[in-house]
Amino acid sequence: MPSAVRLIEVGPRDGLQNEKTPISTESKLSFINCLLDSGLREIEITSFVSPKWVPQLGDAMDLIAALPMDRGALYSALVPNQKGLERALETGIDRIALFTAASESFTKKNINATIAESLANFREIMTEFRKVHPKGFVRGYVSTVIECPYEGRVAPDQVKPVVMELAQMGVNEICLGETIGVAVPAEVEALAHVLEDSIDVEMIAWHFHDTRGTAIANVEAMWRRGYRSFDASAGGLGGCPYAPGAGGNLAMEDLVYFLERSGVQTGVDLSKLALASEPIWQELGRTSPSKVHQAVLSACQG
Amino acid sequence: MPSAVRLIEVGPRDGLQNEKTPISTESKLSFINCLLDSGLREIEITSFVSPKWVPQLGDAMDLIAALPMDRGALYSALVPNQKGLERALETGIDRIALFTAASESFTKKNINATIAESLANFREIMTEFRKVHPKGFVRGYVSTVIECPYEGRVAPDQVKPVVMELAQMGVNEICLGETIGVAVPAEVEALAHVLEDSIDVEMIAWHFHDTRGTAIANVEAMWRRGYRSFDASAGGLGGCPYAPGAGGNLAMEDLVYFLERSGVQTGVDLSKLALASEPIWQELGRTSPSKVHQAVLSACQG
Repeated sequence: MPSAVRLIEVGPRDGLQNEKTPISTESKLSFINCLLDSGLREIEITSFVSPKWVPQLGDAMDLIAALPMDRGALYSALVPNQKGLERALETGIDRIALFTAASESFTKKNINATIAESLANFREIMTEFRKVHPKGFVRGYVSTVIECPYEGRVAPDQVKPVVMELAQMGVNEICLGETIGVAVPAEVEALAHVLEDSIDVEMIAWHFHDTRGTAIANVEAMWRRGYRSFDASAGGLGGCPYAPGAGGNLAMEDLVYFLERSGVQTGVDLSKLALASEPIWQELGRTSPSKVHQAVLSACQG
Repeated sequence: MPSAVRLIEVGPRDGLQNEKTPISTESKLSFINCLLDSGLREIEITSFVSPKWVPQLGDAMDLIAALPMDRGALYSALVPNQKGLERALETGIDRIALFTAASESFTKKNINATIAESLANFREIMTEFRKVHPKGFVRGYVSTVIECPYEGRVAPDQVKPVVMELAQMGVNEICLGETIGVAVPAEVEALAHVLEDSIDVEMIAWHFHDTRGTAIANVEAMWRRGYRSFDASAGGLGGCPYAPGAGGNLAMEDLVYFLERSGVQTGVDLSKLALASEPIWQELGRTSPSKVHQAVLSACQG
């Protein structure tokens, strides 16, 4: 079983996409450079969503053009549709992420498609992308793998066919999203158990939300099962559905702290990581909901 | 293995003892009544510490005299010394908690005694208490079971003799305190493994702090090993060593949410529990650091 962990930082994309306060391309670049300084290497930096719908990420082309390319980073970007693919191909980015979900209501409300339609769209985009980037990396997101905000609980048997179809399509990685942050280890284990009959643990990344404080327990449970790829966002940026202090995304600081204290080397400097998102929090006028972020900063400041 | 969980609410004592803003006896009584309304039954309500040192708990005698005695509650109070025992005996309270630690520096700085002296003091107080309350309940706290703020890591072999001496003294329960909130499951498991040679899991309660977001993962790990008694405080009251939003005590809401979602019936109404500490937070001028607290309140308020 591999001991090396893969940490996928999603702050610049998933962390910012719902924020109303505009963050400049310059601030994003500085943020990404600080993330690289901290030791992180895999960063999902933006989405080629329509700038009309998500003005915050409207600078995707400019951002990618300005990224430092000499730092060993693996940058990826979300591609929601054909139009987004055209823009992605113009930039030359060779890692993309595509999106579907395990619940019909969620795909309907989010991308106005059935799961089957989203998968057909997915296949088409991936095929065109691979024509240009035969060795390009494609991540497939599957959201609502435990519970859907519209349908309630999602059974492992609903998740499995979506995951299997992505695997058969030839994606490089499948990222399972616990979209609303309600799951406990027993549920995640039940899902993993069903999937493991048919798919290697190496193919799967987990994307946990910490909305109810259970994300680290879920990471721990999946680590014990042999999973080594986990998403998180610096400072827990992204998804702040409740009062200040409530969380959406699992904070990368919490993930790194947990792993390092458990004896897993991450190569990430926690102080630099905590400082990386501080200018963004200041621009947003909020503080990070991450307890480790706060503990580390407090220690930094004496 | 028993499935029934014991939840020990420590908010009125551990949650308030370090707060500078005075909370009136009336507010505390209202808080305790709301905790009972939520379904909690075991509450550590105060400490007989000197009112000079901790004015916040200076109303211990009045508070106990005013407690509702017809609600099936199990009230306990911390007794730090001989003088405290005299006051405790005056009130007639039949459940007390005594205190020691696994690190010499911590007992020295906290109670100005060696561990051996604190244990001798402990034995004396328990003996006198049992003369008056032969069937009284005595909890023994052992702090810094994973790490000490002054000495660093504490080995399981340092914890074991303290725990064994308390067990041999005849305490009813030993509560292991992860005082600074740094532990991950691997460490807590290593400690449990060492103790389980010599002591029943039923004798042990765990007191986790959530300062770095690992408390629920630790609870989960100990639940899997068969432990069923856990401390927490409503809203995560107590110990706010860092910025607003950072945590000390594990929030009872987070614990109840985790257990219920894992299929364990707690008998606690989460909405009532989240509302219970709200007036206290308002008096303190802060918001609860508990993610579940915030999620539940946000849902309550539509």
